[in-house]
Amino acid sequence: MLEPERILRLEDDRVVFLDQRKLPGEEVEVECRTAADVADAIRTMVVRGAPAIGIAAAYGYALAAARGEDLDAADRVLRESRPTAVNLAWALDEMQPEPTAERARTIHREEVARCRVMSAHAATLLTPGSRALTHCNAGGLATGGYGSAVGALVAAWDEGVLSHVWVDETRPLLQGARLTAWELETAGIPHTVIADSAAASLMAAGEIDAVVTGADRIAANGDTANKIGTYALAVLARHHELPLYVVAPSTTVDLDTASGAEIAIEQRDPAEITDRFTALNPAFDVTPAALISAIVTEYGVHTAPFELART
Amino acid sequence: MLEPERILRLEDDRVVFLDQRKLPGEEVEVECRTAADVADAIRTMVVRGAPAIGIAAAYGYALAAARGEDLDAADRVLRESRPTAVNLAWALDEMQPEPTAERARTIHREEVARCRVMSAHAATLLTPGSRALTHCNAGGLATGGYGSAVGALVAAWDEGVLSHVWVDETRPLLQGARLTAWELETAGIPHTVIADSAAASLMAAGEIDAVVTGADRIAANGDTANKIGTYALAVLARHHELPLYVVAPSTTVDLDTASGAEIAIEQRDPAEITDRFTALNPAFDVTPAALISAIVTEYGVHTAPFELART
Repeated sequence: MLEPERILRLEDDRVVFLDQRKLPGEEVEVECRTAADVADAIRTMVVRGAPAIGIAAAYGYALAAARGEDLDAADRVLRESRPTAVNLAWALDEMQPEPTAERARTIHREEVARCRVMSAHAATLLTPGSRALTHCNAGGLATGGYGSAVGALVAAWDEGVLSHVWVDETRPLLQGARLTAWELETAGIPHTVIADSAAASLMAAGEIDAVVTGADRIAANGDTANKIGTYALAVLARHHELPLYVVAPSTTVDLDTASGAEIAIEQRDPAEITDRFTALNPAFDVTPAALISAIVTEYGVHTAPFELART
Repeated sequence: MLEPERILRLEDDRVVFLDQRKLPGEEVEVECRTAADVADAIRTMVVRGAPAIGIAAAYGYALAAARGEDLDAADRVLRESRPTAVNLAWALDEMQPEPTAERARTIHREEVARCRVMSAHAATLLTPGSRALTHCNAGGLATGGYGSAVGALVAAWDEGVLSHVWVDETRPLLQGARLTAWELETAGIPHTVIADSAAASLMAAGEIDAVVTGADRIAANGDTANKIGTYALAVLARHHELPLYVVAPSTTVDLDTASGAEIAIEQRDPAEITDRFTALNPAFDVTPAALISAIVTEYGVHTAPFELART
């Protein structure tokens, strides 16, 4: 299991990230000395995953405060570094009253604690012998430690109910083939990487028992934005009568967003797909609540109709 | 439009292929001087696409006959070079009675002629202004000229009923992002490449009017094997109430295969996906006939219940 401090940490005069763009080939660190540097690390996906970028923003803001940067400007550059995950805004709101290193480290510690609790809840949903499919990386790298969807798989493995994990490679940036496979290998959990488009035929062949993903933003009605391709899996899971479980800390729930239609979807550089032809590169899609079997937060297992305002 | 002879041709003592692994970056040719060389070019996907590998096998067999090779051995090595497309077996059966260069060139010419006819049929299925999604490459490169699914799009463009093509990049070998985009660019048809997993959200957003693909083998009941991911698109198209049209020459129909369950699915090297972790790399999947709106061959537009034995 990756130590939270290895994924990202605040030191006296810098925020240090394990560079997720280089994993698993190289384990190198990136050092950021200003809030703008941290925003750049978020934008370029040195660090990614909704909870992890929230923690990164908290550290960036604490760093800005310690350096005597203009805090309004620091807040703005961090808040705008990526548009879809609500955790950025949540973490910065949390930091406003007390922009200290201690507060930021508490946010980090509490986020990892939430992951452990919700993962235990999520593990109860899997039946013994389950073969789960996951998409993108919702592991410790994405949450600052332990993980959300991958955390649930680790908890299920520890409980003895998980037998295998199918890992979508997750184009274009291959977070599944690079990061999730690496985390599962580290955890000693049997896994197989597949092209994203192979999930459907595995479902048809009866090789998948459940789909387990994280989330980047969950609207009040349960509509969920997550890595591009999640919505496809949701439709496929429904067609094959398989459950889709979304595992995310409550910090990913945005009660100010009524439904998925209001969630801003980040469009990334088409060159991530091809530098030769015209391309469209949405980073996320929205899965309607009706296709989600359960949303699991640290408060427990929520099923439709989702009344997340109560959590 | 790519000239058929530029895609593959038989010369006096060799079969020459445009190396599809290198496109669109480099336009280089590969020369094969024995049937075993041709089989190797098929296996390593110098040439790919069900009709094109059938033509390649015919050329390889004619070459073997001209060289005085053992024709049983030549037949075997070519027939076994890839397992899923039935066109290999069809073309070799056609060559047995008359293993000449002229016969092989006729097979090539007739296959391109079928493409033109079926593409005209398929174009009638699209409504004016259509935005079509295609997967993998079912263009001239895949058929030895003109194309099947891409041929249909070219015909629809010429008829003025097509407005845009969404091109699945098609992992792991990116035949969409490399080959289909290149062919559409050459034909002057507006197109946008997307990650395979982005098709679902484009459907949900109302940006796609029809899905048009080729086929690698069509069973007698209409079940269709095609590039991995086609089945996912079929389920997604049904969910979004969009038509899925399969365009393929009758040489791709295998009346000896009753249903998709009998089609051998090629498993390719997992290293095409990742060389670092365990991976599974099925090259094709099977779309049940019930999810196919129409199968278009040179004989016309066939709708369910498919009675392909009559074609």
